[in-house]
Amino acid sequence: MSTNDTTDPIEAVRAKLEDEIPDDLVVSRVAYEGPELVIYTETPREFAERDGLIRRLASTLRKRITVRPASGTQLNPAEAKPKILDLIPEEAGITNLQFYPATGEVLIEAEKPGLVIGRRASTLREITQEVGWTPDVLRTPPMESSTVDNVRNFLMQERDDRRDFLERVGQRIHREQTGETDWVRVTTLGCCREVGRASFVLSTPETRVLIDCGDKPGAEGEVPYLQVPEANPIADLDAVVLTHAHLDHSALLPLLFKYGYDGPVYTTEPTRDLMGLLQLDYLDVAAKEGRTPPYESEMVREELKHTITLDYGDVTDIAPDIKLTFHNAGHILGSAVAHFHIGDGFHNVVFSGDIHYDDTRLFNGASNDFPRVESLVMESTYGRRDDYQTDQADSERKLIELIQETYDRDGKVVIPAFAVGRSQELMLVLEEAMREGKLPTMPIYLDGMIREATAIHTAYPEFLRDGLRDRILHEDQNPFLAEQFQQVDGGQEMREEVAGGEPCIILSTSGMVTGGPIMSWLELLGSDEENQLIFVGYQAQGTLGRRIQSGRREIPFSDRGGRSEQLTLRFDVESVSGFSGHADRNGLENFVGTMNPRPEEIICVHGDEASTDQLSSGLYQKYDVRTYAPRNLETFRFD
Amino acid sequence: MSTNDTTDPIEAVRAKLEDEIPDDLVVSRVAYEGPELVIYTETPREFAERDGLIRRLASTLRKRITVRPASGTQLNPAEAKPKILDLIPEEAGITNLQFYPATGEVLIEAEKPGLVIGRRASTLREITQEVGWTPDVLRTPPMESSTVDNVRNFLMQERDDRRDFLERVGQRIHREQTGETDWVRVTTLGCCREVGRASFVLSTPETRVLIDCGDKPGAEGEVPYLQVPEANPIADLDAVVLTHAHLDHSALLPLLFKYGYDGPVYTTEPTRDLMGLLQLDYLDVAAKEGRTPPYESEMVREELKHTITLDYGDVTDIAPDIKLTFHNAGHILGSAVAHFHIGDGFHNVVFSGDIHYDDTRLFNGASNDFPRVESLVMESTYGRRDDYQTDQADSERKLIELIQETYDRDGKVVIPAFAVGRSQELMLVLEEAMREGKLPTMPIYLDGMIREATAIHTAYPEFLRDGLRDRILHEDQNPFLAEQFQQVDGGQEMREEVAGGEPCIILSTSGMVTGGPIMSWLELLGSDEENQLIFVGYQAQGTLGRRIQSGRREIPFSDRGGRSEQLTLRFDVESVSGFSGHADRNGLENFVGTMNPRPEEIICVHGDEASTDQLSSGLYQKYDVRTYAPRNLETFRFD
Repeated sequence: MSTNDTTDPIEAVRAKLEDEIPDDLVVSRVAYEGPELVIYTETPREFAERDGLIRRLASTLRKRITVRPASGTQLNPAEAKPKILDLIPEEAGITNLQFYPATGEVLIEAEKPGLVIGRRASTLREITQEVGWTPDVLRTPPMESSTVDNVRNFLMQERDDRRDFLERVGQRIHREQTGETDWVRVTTLGCCREVGRASFVLSTPETRVLIDCGDKPGAEGEVPYLQVPEANPIADLDAVVLTHAHLDHSALLPLLFKYGYDGPVYTTEPTRDLMGLLQLDYLDVAAKEGRTPPYESEMVREELKHTITLDYGDVTDIAPDIKLTFHNAGHILGSAVAHFHIGDGFHNVVFSGDIHYDDTRLFNGASNDFPRVESLVMESTYGRRDDYQTDQADSERKLIELIQETYDRDGKVVIPAFAVGRSQELMLVLEEAMREGKLPTMPIYLDGMIREATAIHTAYPEFLRDGLRDRILHEDQNPFLAEQFQQVDGGQEMREEVAGGEPCIILSTSGMVTGGPIMSWLELLGSDEENQLIFVGYQAQGTLGRRIQSGRREIPFSDRGGRSEQLTLRFDVESVSGFSGHADRNGLENFVGTMNPRPEEIICVHGDEASTDQLSSGLYQKYDVRTYAPRNLETFRFD
Repeated sequence: MSTNDTTDPIEAVRAKLEDEIPDDLVVSRVAYEGPELVIYTETPREFAERDGLIRRLASTLRKRITVRPASGTQLNPAEAKPKILDLIPEEAGITNLQFYPATGEVLIEAEKPGLVIGRRASTLREITQEVGWTPDVLRTPPMESSTVDNVRNFLMQERDDRRDFLERVGQRIHREQTGETDWVRVTTLGCCREVGRASFVLSTPETRVLIDCGDKPGAEGEVPYLQVPEANPIADLDAVVLTHAHLDHSALLPLLFKYGYDGPVYTTEPTRDLMGLLQLDYLDVAAKEGRTPPYESEMVREELKHTITLDYGDVTDIAPDIKLTFHNAGHILGSAVAHFHIGDGFHNVVFSGDIHYDDTRLFNGASNDFPRVESLVMESTYGRRDDYQTDQADSERKLIELIQETYDRDGKVVIPAFAVGRSQELMLVLEEAMREGKLPTMPIYLDGMIREATAIHTAYPEFLRDGLRDRILHEDQNPFLAEQFQQVDGGQEMREEVAGGEPCIILSTSGMVTGGPIMSWLELLGSDEENQLIFVGYQAQGTLGRRIQSGRREIPFSDRGGRSEQLTLRFDVESVSGFSGHADRNGLENFVGTMNPRPEEIICVHGDEASTDQLSSGLYQKYDVRTYAPRNLETFRFD
């Protein structure tokens, strides 16, 4: 059957499908929902019986494929529910079971989703064969997370609206391409010769994609240059891609919806939840500091409603001429290196996002294995010639030593940390040290959103390192549940109590001392020489953290009444560098050096002027590739 | 008087004016017409009496100022005409006198405009004092030029419409600026790593200016990337600036009006006339070759109607945050280096256009003396390491030798030349050689638009070198009127006659052998070994000229009936390099090297890949400035 004269793309696909599938399978409707091709069938049971058919179709059509029962072909929920429960082993720990007649899906939330899925998805197929519904499986987080709950509930409630949205996006992605893809451009809207306000536009004659949209810590007014012509009209962007949840990449993403954007946000599942958490906190902090944030929480909900999550390694059409694949970036939970395949073999661009090249306790090191890559836009946070971090084992020893010394003199240790990433890494280090007797067991107080962020980690163990994942999945070994971890949930009163009490460790946000509970801890503990402040993460220029790290001891402060006063820090200030979520200079070089094939050109961004300059010239000298350290508002042409 | 609370900019200027001028001068209206501030007065005679007042106002207000009589204050034309003729010496040779009541101007066209103006404009002032009209003086070309006539007649006829247009532009130029100018960007729409389709966008947060809009000789489909977001919407551009009339800079400028542009085109007066000539020929050639040109001749008229001419050295507001000044570029008649002063001392960008650094017979060498310049976008046509042209004196000797040899063997010399620029330079060389007996006097046939282009040169002698200007203004010494110059005005028949006749020289367009009468000359003279083809100008990649220059002798041809056949060239082919309108590598280096102050960064464009690369690295090594050889579709950020 020839399909050449069919102009509607979906009809062409439908015709092709009918060529490929056996006659006894009845396809009632075919539709794109976002990047996926959804096949509605009158014979869901027969479809489920054909092991491998869907995989074969996906490879022939080069699409992600989902099969759903046409309505009316399923058992009614009252009959289906006991049958489903029968098929799933009890140890799976089902916590939620919900039917969605509009899509023919049944949502199954379980403590052990692997047992719901079965070996090679055999249990899922059995469920469909038995009841006609398509199962959609989620993990119940081992630690309760209000974020995960809220996001999931919200998305369930919006399920019908989302289907309309996904069909609209699907049609747009699979539209007929109007011309040839004969150029690729990247425009820098932020984070060039600076750390903060990460944002780029990737464009072709057919398509425009925005990558990240962050704020700049310590310089709230400096937002990405969204007004440049290359990004406009915002409403007409084809896609937004978020590499990870940190605010310097995500804070201003909801603003796009205020500007009329109505398209998809592609990111990983954990990043979706984390960004929601951090953005709502961003609004909260702004309100507390008397600033008017550029958008309202309603826009965060809009953004969640428009988010399409992808797993690492999924090759996904996001436009007629662009395929996106996420790879592990090793930086924080869900963080991704974004690989764009443009045109049909025309060009490949990789945005590193933030990366950690070596393995850490939490994550495998950043992936740098791509089928092809000609252009690389990479972070340069620690790009200076001398930006070498100590080995993590040495850093851990040093950290433990510092804590031991403070403990010995009856002092308390305060560690400013990002809620997401470094806090969990430190928790693992401290839990192990105490478990192995390298440190006396003492309370570790978590202030700010650290506990909540930790709970989100436990909801997505697939994104963590193997050993850690397994421990989390066995409740009695879950290191994050160790009893020395105590949430500061009693506000200022509890802080004062802790400050007046026994030796302890405090992990508190914000990580760059730009606000949040860390400010109270400086006030409560900073004037006592027995205590200690330890920096474990990058402190951006312009932040109070950077100023303290550089030796400043007199810091401005507003007291309860809002009057500003001066606080003199007398406690010891130390920095331990090995815990950064970022690759050091060595790691950045290795990320490029072991990349195969090697890119032809590298754009060094996300670092101050010296870092991007020195990394750029270093990579050029070492690997003989074209390198650049651009400014904001520049546009590069690739191919 | 305080004007701080006045929000209308024109009201503020009016108030300031009233502070500055004596009470007996009555100002009835103040308006911006394009970049000029026009003062309408009830007392034009008194204004004219105050010698130096207008100059003083111009310097206080930092505006170009024109004073016009308010209507009703002048003598009626019938009375005024004889008085004006009385005031002007007869030798001025008035050829046209026309009154424009709407603006209170009287147009005076004369063979010797200097005598109409008088010493330090004294005669002009006397005219106004006597009759109340403001004189506008034009030179009657010493050689009749239908282009100059047509353009001037057209503009006279559109005079009222133009005043509305100029007022609209004036209001836009002098609008209140909305924000700070804190960045400057330049986007390359063409002519990067190639010769042809010159076009750039210069933008600030407030303003967007398009510089040049040319075609690509030998690659008609490759037009500037006008569709990039930085150039759009085209209709909203603030200004278009044209550096010179050659088609690789001007051919597609009328297209902007088809795309809805309705703003000003800034260029010099000779460039205005030359571009009209060349663009209409461009449409003509396209029609003859069966191509559909991208616009119609109506758009050339639109463009002329929107053109505002500036003299070299005029510092002109073209937007709230941009001042434009043209400087002599030495390349062709009216060619300009465009200097943009951006913000109030924020940044200065120079676009070289095409330049000739050394003096030639026609022009002074390119000016490179600017108050400030941080960024330079410069041509690289002869930018290769070994692109050294022989000295013009040597080139002339070589040319004369080649012609003498051909003459001695009874052959004919064909020289493909741009109608504008190189033809006139050659005419001067040949006329002198014959006058001084270095060559026997023989006919020099001008084919294509060469004679018309030459006539335009004589209309603007101020744009030529001093000595040449003076000779042109004395009819008996005008070298272009020497009788050996003969126009080929008898079509193919005359060509055949010439081809069968005595030894002679033929200058014919097109300069790169991409069409036009040169094709006939190749056919008529190419197969005879006694004849000779001499290239004197740059032959761009992809043109037939370049292929012949590189040794190709079999060339495709359509015969009269339109069938294509093969023509074998047997005549001698030589290149004499010293006559280029472009600086050679040495000249390009000197243009930068003697520039004071030296720019901080240089963008090398308008040259093939090797030329821009080698010039870029050469300038970097020699002068230690940042240099780039960009691709099309890139955007640079300055400051």
